[in-house]
Order: sequence, then C-alpha cells, then structure tokens
Amino acid sequence: MSTSNAQPRRQELLNQYQQIQAKKLNLDVTRGKPATSQLNLSDSLDGILAGNYKCADGTDARNYGGGLGIPEARQFAADYLETTAARVMVGGNSSLQMMYQYVQGAFQHGVRGADSAWVREAGSGQRIKFLCPAPGYDRHFSICEYLGIEMIPVTMDESGPDMNQVEALLRNDPLIKGIWCVPKYANPNGVVYSAAVVERFAQLGKIAGANFRIMWDNAYAEHHLVDNPPVLANILALSEKYGTLDNVIVIGSTSKITHAGAGIAFIASSEANIQAFNDHLGIQSIGPDKVNQLRHMRMLKDMDALRALMQQHRAILQPKFELVLKHLEQGLGGKGLGSWNKPAGGYFILFDTLPDQADKVVKLCAGAGVKLTPAGSTWPYKKDPANTNIRLAPSFPSLAELDEAMQVFVLCVELAALDQ
Amino acid sequence: MSTSNAQPRRQELLNQYQQIQAKKLNLDVTRGKPATSQLNLSDSLDGILAGNYKCADGTDARNYGGGLGIPEARQFAADYLETTAARVMVGGNSSLQMMYQYVQGAFQHGVRGADSAWVREAGSGQRIKFLCPAPGYDRHFSICEYLGIEMIPVTMDESGPDMNQVEALLRNDPLIKGIWCVPKYANPNGVVYSAAVVERFAQLGKIAGANFRIMWDNAYAEHHLVDNPPVLANILALSEKYGTLDNVIVIGSTSKITHAGAGIAFIASSEANIQAFNDHLGIQSIGPDKVNQLRHMRMLKDMDALRALMQQHRAILQPKFELVLKHLEQGLGGKGLGSWNKPAGGYFILFDTLPDQADKVVKLCAGAGVKLTPAGSTWPYKKDPANTNIRLAPSFPSLAELDEAMQVFVLCVELAALDQ
Repeated sequence: MSTSNAQPRRQELLNQYQQIQAKKLNLDVTRGKPATSQLNLSDSLDGILAGNYKCADGTDARNYGGGLGIPEARQFAADYLETTAARVMVGGNSSLQMMYQYVQGAFQHGVRGADSAWVREAGSGQRIKFLCPAPGYDRHFSICEYLGIEMIPVTMDESGPDMNQVEALLRNDPLIKGIWCVPKYANPNGVVYSAAVVERFAQLGKIAGANFRIMWDNAYAEHHLVDNPPVLANILALSEKYGTLDNVIVIGSTSKITHAGAGIAFIASSEANIQAFNDHLGIQSIGPDKVNQLRHMRMLKDMDALRALMQQHRAILQPKFELVLKHLEQGLGGKGLGSWNKPAGGYFILFDTLPDQADKVVKLCAGAGVKLTPAGSTWPYKKDPANTNIRLAPSFPSLAELDEAMQVFVLCVELAALDQ
Repeated sequence: MSTSNAQPRRQELLNQYQQIQAKKLNLDVTRGKPATSQLNLSDSLDGILAGNYKCADGTDARNYGGGLGIPEARQFAADYLETTAARVMVGGNSSLQMMYQYVQGAFQHGVRGADSAWVREAGSGQRIKFLCPAPGYDRHFSICEYLGIEMIPVTMDESGPDMNQVEALLRNDPLIKGIWCVPKYANPNGVVYSAAVVERFAQLGKIAGANFRIMWDNAYAEHHLVDNPPVLANILALSEKYGTLDNVIVIGSTSKITHAGAGIAFIASSEANIQAFNDHLGIQSIGPDKVNQLRHMRMLKDMDALRALMQQHRAILQPKFELVLKHLEQGLGGKGLGSWNKPAGGYFILFDTLPDQADKVVKLCAGAGVKLTPAGSTWPYKKDPANTNIRLAPSFPSLAELDEAMQVFVLCVELAALDQ
C-alpha cells in the first residue's frame, strides 16, 4: 500500500476498532484448553468402575502403593508411546509435573543417583544449560528459568530444530544437560520433526554424554487435524539402536484426550531410568491415583478406541482451525503483513507479524477485548528476538466467539503495520 | 523368670516357633493401610457426579486451572483443619507430596521468594536442620534425609515433644528451619499433644524467626477409636493470636477417609504462605485434579457427614486394635518384657521391647512369616538409639490374620528376651 492510500485506510481501520471497543468484547484465545464439547466426550469416566476396583494384576486400585502405575495403564501408555510397559511409568494428572519432577530431580539428585546430579557438574559461577528450540512451549522454559538452568535458543525450520546447531553447541559445551522438544505438531508452530532430525536426535547422547536428557514432550501424538497424518519417527526405538536409550525421556498424557487436568500422565525411557525416577518419586509420594488410572483404562481400552475418540475431537477442532485460517487468508492473504502455518494437528497456529510488531498487535487486541498469549511467551526468558511470534489457540472459544476474535485480530495486525 | 526355668520355657517357645514356621505364614503388619472393608465405604465416589461437573463458582472441574483447589473443597478443608478457606489449598492425592513440595520448595526456592530460601542461610560446610520428635513418621524423616537436611531427634512424652528441649535447641541454632509433628494420635505412639504444648508451639516462631516452619501433619484429626475423643488445640488460631501464623503449615488428607491414594490432600497456613506455595507449584502444574475434588465434595458434603463416615471406619478398626491389645496383655502383661500404648485414635500401636531387642524381634517375626516395619524406621536415619520401638499397624489384615500375627509377635518378644 502506498503512503497516499495508507492514511484513509488507517482511519477506516481505527473507526472499525472503535466500533469493536464499544462492544466490550471479552474473548480469550490464549491457551490450548479443550472446549466443553470435547470434555463431554469423556463423561463416561464417572461411574465406569461399577464397583470393580481390581487391576489386571489383582491389585486393589483404591489402596496405597504402585509408584509405576497399574499394569494395564503402563501397557496402554507403552502402546501410545510406542515402547514396552517395563519402560513406562504412569503417574498423576499432570505431565508438566512429571517433567518438572524429572528435571528438578536430575538437577539436584541426579539422573541415576546422587553422583550424576547436574548441579555437581557446574563449577563456581557456572550454570547448567538447556537447549530450547524456539518458538516453543512457555511452560518448559519456565521450569528452566525457575531452576536457574540457562536457556540457549535453537533455530527451527519446517523439519524441526537445526541439528547442525544443536550438535555444534553440544560439542562445545559439556554443561548443556538437556533439550526441550515438542516433536509432533510442535507448540506453537505445528512442526513435525522429520525422520532425519529424529535420527540425529537419537545419536545426541554420543556427543553429550551419559547425563544428557532429551525431554521429548509428545503431547499431541494422536491429535490430528487431517486424514493420513504425518508420522513421527520412533525416538525410543532409534535410540535403542544407537545405544542411547538412557538419554531419551518421552512424555505424554490424556489431558487433551479425556478431561484436561483430570487425566493421567506418563513417561517412558530405559527401564533403569524409570526405576531411578520411581526411587526419586518414592520419597515424596506413596503412589499415583490408581483409581483414576483404572477409570481411564476402562474407558480408553486400546489404541483403536482412543483413535476413534480422537476423531470426535477432530470433528470439533477442525472447523475452528479452518475458521482461523479463513480469516487470516481473507483478511491478510497477499498483503505481506504477516505469515502463518497450517498445522496438521495439535492445538496452535503460529502467526508471525512483520518485525517488531507482535507486542503491538497483542496490545491492540487486548484493547479491543481479545486476549492473546503475551508476545514473547514462546521464547526463553519471554524474549522473542524478532518480536514477531503470536500463538493463536482456537480450541476453547465457540465458533461464533472465534469468528469475532479473528476479525479483531486481522484488523489489529493491519493497524499495527500501518502505524509502523 | 529365674534362670532355671528359662531353659525349658525357651525350648517350649522354640518348638512353637518351628510349628509356626511350618505353616508358612505370609502376614503383613507393616503399614497403615485401610482394610478393603474400609475402602468399600466410599465406593459411591464413582458415578456421583452424574454429568454435573460445575463447581460452586461455576468453574468446569474438567478443564485446566485452579491451583488453589475448587471453592467447596477449600471450604471443606478449612472446616476440617479449623481455619478459613482463604488460608487453604486443596491439591492432589498425596499429602506427603504436598509436604515434600513445601519443604523442597522452601529449601531451594524460599518460603516467600528466593531471598528466603533455607539453603542460602547455610554457610560453606553447614547444613540446614530439622527437629524430629521421635519416634515419628518414617516418611517425614526420609524427606529430610533425601534433601540433605540434618535431623535432630527430640524427646517425646505423653503430652508431646519436650518443649524445653525444642525451645533451647531453637535458641542456640539459627540453622534449624523446621520441625515435623503428627500432633494427634501421633504416628507411631498415639500421643495427642496437650493444650500447653500446642500453645508453646504457637510461639516458636518468635524464637526461630520468619523462615522457620512447623510441619503440622494432622493426618488423623477425625480418626478416633473412642467415644469423647481428646481435643487437639487449634494451632492456627493460637499462632494467629501470637502473630506467628506464617510459621505454621497444617496438612491433612482424605487418604484414610475415602480411598487411600485416590483421595485429596490439603494444606493450611497464612494466606500469604498459601499464595506463595501456589506460585511455587504453578511452575510445575496447571492445577490439581479438580474432578476428584468435586467427587469428594459431593460425597463428603460436610463435617457431620464426614464424622458419620468416620464412625463406620471406627467400627471396623476398633476390634482390630482391641485384638492386638488383648494379645499383648494376655501374652506379655505383667512379664516385664515390653510396654505399649493404648491409642485413642490413629492407625498404630507402639510396642517397646526391652533395650536392644527390637531388631531381633522383627527378625524373628520375619522368620515366622510375619512382616513388621523394620526396627529403627520410626527414628531419624532409621537409628533407634535404644533399639526398642516396634510399630504395629493393625488396620489392613483381617481379624483372623491379625490373631495369627499377634500370636507370633508375642511369642517372638518372649523368645528374644530369653535369648538375651
């Protein structure tokens, strides 16, 4: 748009913006929360036990004990994470908590006993470090920041993290003890790591050493939005091949399958790692909520049943993603005011503004009653160097709300660009 | 018994012991697990929601969020712990985990922000310390040992810990940052702290300073075995009076009320402490399992309903405690071979052998197929200085199993004494 046309267009947009402000909207596109209609899909969890609390091994789910989880849940999680039950622990309602417990435990108490505590490797004035492919999941980064683990951003492209960069960093710095990954439908950019990238991940342990951990948060393993979804290579199988299974920690949960916040979380690695983690957790708990694990197994049954349920989720989610993409294409397509991805699964769409405009767009939206994830959130220390990333989460609002929110968003992107 | 009579009696007991060994018993009196009949009392938890997941404030229990717990659960826990809802957090299935999270958080991250981290107060080569009234709960002590917090045993009598000793230790050592207490029906000796002791506890903060914490694990608050049960003074009210509310952390759970390991845990303190703890936990979790909280509230309703349920538990537990006491009295009464308490509530009976015989009795029992908590477990570092404490947990076995186990126990106590 030439400068001569910009002024009237700006005034037009400002008028629209003020009209929207008068509506006093209160819309929230911040977090990947399932919609109520998605939660309804799992209401049969309540009452499903029908007085039968006996687990597959005869254990009474109602009593104490069983830190590794009930056998049928371990088998289910093994199928879900593509490994064997002996390499799986099933825990409580939060995979984030399991990741925190793992990283905090490794940091202070060791990945395999006190001698392997990361904190012991840092000399005076030194800090342990994590690689953080960015943009990424804000809560991963918060864990590192809280624990005083220094974060090093790693560039991503459509195949996953830049593995040349990852390998070079690991070769040069023995204080790097981990890397955060959401390898499938990555939060927030929807990337699925390519087979070649996963194969290189499976060999990182040879560079980084015995105490290095890949935190492979496979949060969206079965959360497809397309037919014939992309396949993520099996890092557990590959790392076994390369003798690096100890370096890989795979995490999943049913939070976006059954009831968010009332599901079950699981973690897989080598059997020795799982046993060591169980010893660590044994100090703080007599075991996870086995009744809720049993409830989930009675409902989810097996991978076929789970995939049928995920199709029902998709039927609710897909129109919302399509609506967001329609607004972006119709409102911004061809204007050169930003770019976005079209994810094949997961919970997010990443929008990139023109350089240095993300915070401005978020602020403008907030002023019009549309809450977005704060600019910068998807980067370590909340510092997006280009200030362009905005994470859109279409799942929770209704289609009508989303329609209204996206009108505002598209308008604010253009307005911010004209104000530049 | 004179020496001349001892030899034939010893032979008689040995014969009995061998006869028992031939039976190949497999009995377990180790842990305070509820019996199956107790667990059955709460089976209405499953199915109780009947499609209604709406909390008192309109929140959908099935979605993410709400780190402090749902409002009705906070109010219930406040009634249970005798305080106000704003001073309560309701969490997941494990009060032990909440205690670990609190102590670990205070140690590394501070009771109220990083500046107050206990670890910062320890100079080079120094360690933070906890007072441990002993005998006490083994899992409290494991937390300290794991975190590298030095434990100082404190003498107990029938009124609670020796407060002269506690106060003197605190005056002399600013590195003492906490004390573990089970103030009612103490694990394992059944003691209920007297009003005078609780009143002195409520003033400890004035000696010990702002970062000191009393870990008041009120695990058996409503777990009576008698009519007109003893009353524990309200430490939260008293500490408010003395301006030391920040120093007190009160913990409870429904583990021995509904389903052990699948209940809900809660913690109470000053509102500022609860908020700080919520911030700490917010790094690792998006919130507790609110569906299970709601389920519990629909079933437990209020303190009257809870007390009616506890009477049903008592009806199951009391005969078991009476059976243990009957065996002790009939088998050992007047023989001077040991002493024991008669608890008015809780889950344990503490037996004291003659000096230096506890480990021997535990070993003899194991040899006859009766598993007891390892000798020493009830002391910091598992070191019972007199080697006399044995914790008996009558709740889980059936009356028939308990009858058999106690015959073995009584026999082994006498046999160990004769072998001395």
